[in-house]
Amino acid sequence: MTDYASVQWTRDIVRVLDQRVLPHQVVYRDLTDEDEVAAAIREMVVRGAPLIGAVAAYGMALAARRSTATDPIALRADLARVAESLAAARPTAVNLTWAVARVIDRIEAEGLASVEEMKRVALDEAHRIAFEDVQVNRQLGWNALPLIPDVATIIHHCNTGGLATVDVGTALGVIRVAHEQGKRIHVLVDETRPRLQGARLTAWELRELGIPYTVIVDGASGHFMRTKGVDLCLVGCDRVAANGDTANKIGRASCRERV
Amino acid sequence: MTDYASVQWTRDIVRVLDQRVLPHQVVYRDLTDEDEVAAAIREMVVRGAPLIGAVAAYGMALAARRSTATDPIALRADLARVAESLAAARPTAVNLTWAVARVIDRIEAEGLASVEEMKRVALDEAHRIAFEDVQVNRQLGWNALPLIPDVATIIHHCNTGGLATVDVGTALGVIRVAHEQGKRIHVLVDETRPRLQGARLTAWELRELGIPYTVIVDGASGHFMRTKGVDLCLVGCDRVAANGDTANKIGRASCRERV
Repeated sequence: MTDYASVQWTRDIVRVLDQRVLPHQVVYRDLTDEDEVAAAIREMVVRGAPLIGAVAAYGMALAARRSTATDPIALRADLARVAESLAAARPTAVNLTWAVARVIDRIEAEGLASVEEMKRVALDEAHRIAFEDVQVNRQLGWNALPLIPDVATIIHHCNTGGLATVDVGTALGVIRVAHEQGKRIHVLVDETRPRLQGARLTAWELRELGIPYTVIVDGASGHFMRTKGVDLCLVGCDRVAANGDTANKIGRASCRERV
Repeated sequence: MTDYASVQWTRDIVRVLDQRVLPHQVVYRDLTDEDEVAAAIREMVVRGAPLIGAVAAYGMALAARRSTATDPIALRADLARVAESLAAARPTAVNLTWAVARVIDRIEAEGLASVEEMKRVALDEAHRIAFEDVQVNRQLGWNALPLIPDVATIIHHCNTGGLATVDVGTALGVIRVAHEQGKRIHVLVDETRPRLQGARLTAWELRELGIPYTVIVDGASGHFMRTKGVDLCLVGCDRVAANGDTANKIGRASCRERV
């Protein structure tokens, strides 16, 4: 685990790292009810598809535990309302609706035995979602390891690290595992306009992890590929179509085409 | 002439528009001696190769008028020292050394008749440099006019407008003349990282001129060329090599290659 945690569950509180003020300040915020969770997603206190999913799942667990419903049917109605409100906080985030639905489906599958049992199950499912995300990311890094040269210069666009996920990261997780396995990686970090996820978040993570990096403006990536021996580009991927096409934020496509 | 003036000579003062605080504030700064002129160039109060040249020439005129030298030889020594100091303010700016040398060469050519005559000639040469820049830019716009469709979407990188020159502009001057001649231009303005000359300066100029524009992140230019029917790209050019190669800031080359 890294020294920073994008999301933690602590005594009926969802604690998140406020990504709006990085890298200049490291501020954790305690979210104490489902409205605060929705606001944190809406205002981009947290971002990154996998992280948004996990935070929303914890938001469901929080709502269940705070609910004053005294019977399973009433609690189910409460959670349906919260699920809708959380999903509306960032309508484009597929992981959000997926994670919220997973909590509800699990409760349904367990048979609505009692209010107490439903509250326990909701939190258990949120923990599972978070745990599985870390496992999946780490495995992704191991799967990609043979693709990474022992000495590699890698361009990264956006932020796909522990800050975008529960821990480890997806594309940046590949870099992290390779670094941990002794490969000598230097990362060229696209600053990633307009929101600077690369310059603000990826560069901060790489520094925390002790992985050498250089921030470059997005428009310089072609120049670096042509003149500096870039071995590969590792970028985020919001969607994969059936034909293998991928979608991510602006600047990513041109990165792929130039390789 | 535009309502804004990048440089003006007013009663022994070089008045410049402070480009560091645009577009949020429109602040003119009065430079009253050659050291203030050098500082304004060094600190990027003014930027843009043609403008730097004109401001430096006015800096020479200012130095001549402020000099306490009582004979032509002493004044020539004063001006040689000032020329060196101005040239060091931005060593990469070819226009700067060119303009300063032009003032000195003109004085030499006129024969160092008297201190008063030398002071008059220095200012006259600075005015000529400024005037010629405006003329050249306007002619550039007329020459390029046949290349511009009557309805055109044009990508522009960096700032090459009246703010980069004495007035009118080079690449942006082409857009301006075409607009004045009734062509319906929409400009996609690359924000131009890392210093944002496009988002801060070009967008501000286009708004002042009433020319429709949209600011885009640099990484989006390829996407717009592929999907939005971009007719041409007009960009700045710091150098032209004998073989036609051109050099400008990062992001410009990739713009050309994609067309």
